[in-house]
Amino acid sequence: MGDKVTGNLLIIGGNEDKTGDCLILKKFIEMAGGRDAKIAIVTTATEYPREVGDQYRQLFLALGAESVVILYIADREMANTPRQTAEIETATGLFLTGGDQLRLTSILGGSEVDNALRRAYSRGTVIAGTSAGASVMSDTMIVEGDSNDTPKKSTLSMAHGMGLLEEVVVDQHFAQRGRINRLLATVAQNPYILGVGIDEDTALAVTPDARCEVIGSQTVTIIDGKHIMYSNISESQTYEPLAITNVLLHILPAGFGYDLKRRRPYICGS
Amino acid sequence: MGDKVTGNLLIIGGNEDKTGDCLILKKFIEMAGGRDAKIAIVTTATEYPREVGDQYRQLFLALGAESVVILYIADREMANTPRQTAEIETATGLFLTGGDQLRLTSILGGSEVDNALRRAYSRGTVIAGTSAGASVMSDTMIVEGDSNDTPKKSTLSMAHGMGLLEEVVVDQHFAQRGRINRLLATVAQNPYILGVGIDEDTALAVTPDARCEVIGSQTVTIIDGKHIMYSNISESQTYEPLAITNVLLHILPAGFGYDLKRRRPYICGS
Repeated sequence: MGDKVTGNLLIIGGNEDKTGDCLILKKFIEMAGGRDAKIAIVTTATEYPREVGDQYRQLFLALGAESVVILYIADREMANTPRQTAEIETATGLFLTGGDQLRLTSILGGSEVDNALRRAYSRGTVIAGTSAGASVMSDTMIVEGDSNDTPKKSTLSMAHGMGLLEEVVVDQHFAQRGRINRLLATVAQNPYILGVGIDEDTALAVTPDARCEVIGSQTVTIIDGKHIMYSNISESQTYEPLAITNVLLHILPAGFGYDLKRRRPYICGS
Repeated sequence: MGDKVTGNLLIIGGNEDKTGDCLILKKFIEMAGGRDAKIAIVTTATEYPREVGDQYRQLFLALGAESVVILYIADREMANTPRQTAEIETATGLFLTGGDQLRLTSILGGSEVDNALRRAYSRGTVIAGTSAGASVMSDTMIVEGDSNDTPKKSTLSMAHGMGLLEEVVVDQHFAQRGRINRLLATVAQNPYILGVGIDEDTALAVTPDARCEVIGSQTVTIIDGKHIMYSNISESQTYEPLAITNVLLHILPAGFGYDLKRRRPYICGS
């Protein structure tokens, strides 16, 4: 795996620091070109685009971005207008806010803006997403699933994501909302897929060499199912608890990375 | 490991079914001799010994036990009275209620009742414990630790348990209270120790061959640290997030067991 990673992503677990050191948002501006960063914010996920968009615009300008535009794409008609597409073409960094991941995919999926996003990703433009904006990055995303519950097939609801990061499934607000069991159930469905759970105020910076570096104050949980010996996911009844054996787990704070190609964690600088 | 398992235990994750099939409590009566079961309930952990004791007495009688006594051991003086000890000597099954694990160990630890419990365990008398009564079974037990939080050293508070099950640490109300991260931090402290997280209405029945069978409606999570490649638990600052790599994880529902000697899960009947 990892061969399909071709660009730069910053996948944020939600609730990133906006008043202190702003480590994660600073990293985004740095990845987008620092003083030359031209940022486009996509507010499609949120139901409060003005408030959320304005907050990020002010933060990105304060952190030194050259320019910041907000793309208030609220329906499929807007997602197909040339003006929005043009803004994405000229941006050096794209930021997907939090909200509802199904709003993002149902409004953008297959639109001109979606195509422009993919072209930008191919060119190397960094795409950052927080919370729902993080979930949509994988090809199949978790839409719903109970937290703090015994893993069960029934608690999972999946949908097509934007597919910027293949062979991976991303979950966010991870430790804070007790989501490990829904991620385990997801990996049990297809152990080829790597489960990535990102805590709040924590991000994974993905580069074209398929290495991912942890940034922020909390941790990233990696669930690797390649050694799973047994799971009952295919035969279990909807409300029956799952059985899964031999899952490999890594908990990685800042200073650690994960190599998607070699499928293993590393200490940064090593 | 597993060589030190010499008796029969029923370790219950709390909140076991008391109104439906009562699978777990029924298993306890069965392990204690069925129609010949003489049960002694130890209410030391709870601050409501009358209510809790009465409820279990009625349940055990309804499930077919021959006799049920309640040992209201509320202080160290009572924990050293011959009457209490005699009841433990004649019982075929002992039941530790939930409550506060430090009440159990601080009142019973080193007392005549404690000695009688250990002798009963050596003779093969089944000892069941639910919630706090489950936590005290290991030699080192988790007293406190934040749930649904990034794993951190600071969130853990440990103490000496009753040591009926060595080389293992038990946590309860596991999925329901999002406790995986505190169990991971515990295992990182000494990867020789196996982490066992038991969900509510779920139990692990341990037999003298060191095999453990899952019973009940939810799951048991096994955290095996023997392959941990790296952890920062010794050098990390109190509030710094933990790093742990290569943890082996199993999620086991009813129908599955775990062999403590071979340190691996199995399908019951196989």
